[in-house]
Amino acid sequence: MSMSLARLNAAIGRINDVLCAASVLVWDSRTMLPRGGGAARAEQLATLSLLARDLLLADETRQALDGARREVEIYSDDDPWRRAVHKVEEAIALHRRIPADLIERKTKARALGTLIWIEARANDDFASFAPALAEIVAVTRDYADAAGWSGHPYDALIGLYEPGTTFADISALLAELKLGIRPILDVALGRKRPARDFLNHPFPEEKVKAAARLLTEVLGYDYEHGRLDKTVHPFAISFTCADVRITMRLGERSFANSLFGAMHETGHGLYEQNVDPAFTRTPLTTDLVGLHAGGGASLGTHESQSRLQENHVGRSGDFWLAHFAAVKQALGGLDGIDADAFQHAVNDVSPGLIRTEADELTYDFHVMLRVELEAALLTGNLKVSDIPGAWREAMQRQLGVMVPNDREGCLQDVHWASGSMGSFCTYTIGNVMAAQLFEIAKQKDESVATALAKGETAPLRLWLKENVWRHGKRFSRDELLERATGRALEAGPYLRYLNVKYGKAA
Amino acid sequence: MSMSLARLNAAIGRINDVLCAASVLVWDSRTMLPRGGGAARAEQLATLSLLARDLLLADETRQALDGARREVEIYSDDDPWRRAVHKVEEAIALHRRIPADLIERKTKARALGTLIWIEARANDDFASFAPALAEIVAVTRDYADAAGWSGHPYDALIGLYEPGTTFADISALLAELKLGIRPILDVALGRKRPARDFLNHPFPEEKVKAAARLLTEVLGYDYEHGRLDKTVHPFAISFTCADVRITMRLGERSFANSLFGAMHETGHGLYEQNVDPAFTRTPLTTDLVGLHAGGGASLGTHESQSRLQENHVGRSGDFWLAHFAAVKQALGGLDGIDADAFQHAVNDVSPGLIRTEADELTYDFHVMLRVELEAALLTGNLKVSDIPGAWREAMQRQLGVMVPNDREGCLQDVHWASGSMGSFCTYTIGNVMAAQLFEIAKQKDESVATALAKGETAPLRLWLKENVWRHGKRFSRDELLERATGRALEAGPYLRYLNVKYGKAA
Repeated sequence: MSMSLARLNAAIGRINDVLCAASVLVWDSRTMLPRGGGAARAEQLATLSLLARDLLLADETRQALDGARREVEIYSDDDPWRRAVHKVEEAIALHRRIPADLIERKTKARALGTLIWIEARANDDFASFAPALAEIVAVTRDYADAAGWSGHPYDALIGLYEPGTTFADISALLAELKLGIRPILDVALGRKRPARDFLNHPFPEEKVKAAARLLTEVLGYDYEHGRLDKTVHPFAISFTCADVRITMRLGERSFANSLFGAMHETGHGLYEQNVDPAFTRTPLTTDLVGLHAGGGASLGTHESQSRLQENHVGRSGDFWLAHFAAVKQALGGLDGIDADAFQHAVNDVSPGLIRTEADELTYDFHVMLRVELEAALLTGNLKVSDIPGAWREAMQRQLGVMVPNDREGCLQDVHWASGSMGSFCTYTIGNVMAAQLFEIAKQKDESVATALAKGETAPLRLWLKENVWRHGKRFSRDELLERATGRALEAGPYLRYLNVKYGKAA
Repeated sequence: MSMSLARLNAAIGRINDVLCAASVLVWDSRTMLPRGGGAARAEQLATLSLLARDLLLADETRQALDGARREVEIYSDDDPWRRAVHKVEEAIALHRRIPADLIERKTKARALGTLIWIEARANDDFASFAPALAEIVAVTRDYADAAGWSGHPYDALIGLYEPGTTFADISALLAELKLGIRPILDVALGRKRPARDFLNHPFPEEKVKAAARLLTEVLGYDYEHGRLDKTVHPFAISFTCADVRITMRLGERSFANSLFGAMHETGHGLYEQNVDPAFTRTPLTTDLVGLHAGGGASLGTHESQSRLQENHVGRSGDFWLAHFAAVKQALGGLDGIDADAFQHAVNDVSPGLIRTEADELTYDFHVMLRVELEAALLTGNLKVSDIPGAWREAMQRQLGVMVPNDREGCLQDVHWASGSMGSFCTYTIGNVMAAQLFEIAKQKDESVATALAKGETAPLRLWLKENVWRHGKRFSRDELLERATGRALEAGPYLRYLNVKYGKAA
């Protein structure tokens, strides 16, 4: 590596260190923090975030960038370090477009919004949240305008999580899914629902955690470079590939929700643990736009890895034939329930109120609703005060579900309160991409399917590592897909998967 | 507060945030870190430490300092903000005297030294550690010269931990203690040793932790703003007064060592939890010289608070009369042992090899040995290769103990490997200061002694909060002592305490 490139990577390495430190503080906040420590922690996180931005925009970084840019011009277009330099360039250009007072307004609106939302949700009181949300919408729109867009202001927000993807792309994808999934859902809803009361058996927390530990190890999560801890809202987080932590809920109504949540986070964890170590502390493992450590090709790509492990691997009959006995033993119960009954129970289809509890067929409808409302809020076509009504109407229209209150309606997700408008579509992109990758992996390497039939995931992991995980941020989502499957993101494999699993043929 | 002072405090607030973040990373390293995460963590800590120094020396901070300095000239000498400004001034002056390449050498020598020491101690192989230690001694001497000294190079090191204290001060104090403690020790060694085998009863870790939790709560540690976790080398650490964590050993040979360790760290924790919240994120709660968050008036002052809780409160007969039954219940054992027997067992006097396991009468001899060797190393009067011999000779001469190997001799402490030469004397200062404060607290407020006779520490806590804890770094050690007792640090109260407890009268 040349001097100028090494100098740039050193500068980004320091930024990565600061962002990893911030991530440790976030992990600690959600798993370990004593009750009284929240306010001080918020100040520490705000300072680290500003410092990372200052370091990115510092003269030293820009000088290093200038040198490195000349250096990589002779490299091939897909050279990792040419890509790395380009990422720094893009991020600096974006951050320079966002004025300091807007960042401050955004930070305040998000912090205040989250606090007010917690109360409002607890009290089912949307009106008390409305003014804070109105400010979040206003500041988000200002942010979109400052960041820049051509087609739709929503493009600027989606692009933060899913680079290069526009509102038009998402609208087309969601429309195709709505048409494609609807008939499959109708078939599934015509079937008799499986027995599932046993999923609510109240096992002790340590036994559910032991079962989760077992499952995460089956999926290949590496405890030499990770941990599994209890939290309220599960997440995965990375402080370089050498330390990637996952979390799970415990004490939930359904122990199965806890276990599938842990498998979901394992998918995120595997992605982060298996990035090429040579990319550590470089632009290829640092989200310089969002100012987070780690992150992979895009948020949707990340979600594809969690949904792949949770659904394609974790909700398959073969997986439970192989591992249900061990899970039963870890839990110490479920006498008389066999793998088949368990697998049917965890694949039950039923329209419900809550996105995070939705089955595979109704999940994307929850996303459609949110994307629709977000875009309308952003253009002013929907007023904040009209959200509860619009939510009820859409839930009734799309899923035939009556929304009894806002707590289980438009107040259920933290995303708006925390200022993450534009990110919901990445859940659906993850679903679509997971199916696309899973289909091609089985086609290209027959040992993948052979092993999965026995509940073994090592060949699948090898394929994912080769085609997705190791690349970090080197390739875009569609580049990864094109290299692996010859095609960009497309709904076909996902609809085929859903149809085989839930449609007429099933 | 004026604009210029507020600006300075904002700048230091950011530094405090970075240092608190570093402390969270340290806490995590010692309690939670997966085995493979160490190298990445070391980079993150190095970056945060350099960033804190850069922020301190930044033009913005110095400009804020210039404004604030003019502002506080009219304040009274002991005004907290005048003191705060002075602390920033002093720290900037010191850090400007230390060249960047020396910091880099020091950081490398400490990191490498610690790694090599761990191996060398495990293998009882001093020779393999000697070259790394020689570099640490050299870089430490260079540091002392750069920081500046007039009487003895050791002054510059002691001053990092115990501002204003010189090698001459320490030598005089240790000489007085040696003369004073020797005859008390001789009397104590003439007595029959108490039964103490029951201290090695192997209780389950969770029961020992429950007993420790109970004791820390009796001492007033606040779990709304703290946690107690398992670690290998116990420590207390603070991320502002709102989040102060303590740790303890579990799985040790003696459960009593675990419990007294927890009470020791509780003393440190109480100090940090009870600093005036108005001093949060200011120079009065930030060690800008050592670049650590928190820290109190001096390291010796901090140690006085841990030794006060551990020894003066925790090793008293009254304390165990009040609390032994509850501790027995938490442990679920020790049938037939009463509070009196327990108290005698944990006050057993016997010269041994290991400083951290030493009783109250032999502890300071371990410190004397280290101070003597450190000063001689620094001036070149002792060569690194001669340390093992000098150690054996001193242990034999001072405590009559044969040192069978270097693992239990000169390799036992991490301090030299981690580059903390100059800090050992603060343990003895802590012992001396604890006795001085404890004596006067009982004299000045009779409810202190009345409550302690019943095992209650609330009045003592009130007195310590008023006289020590709340002040943070506002006053120096001797100022605190003079305000509370009318006298600077002196050995008298400590020698009286030891004589009453262990001497002829006992």
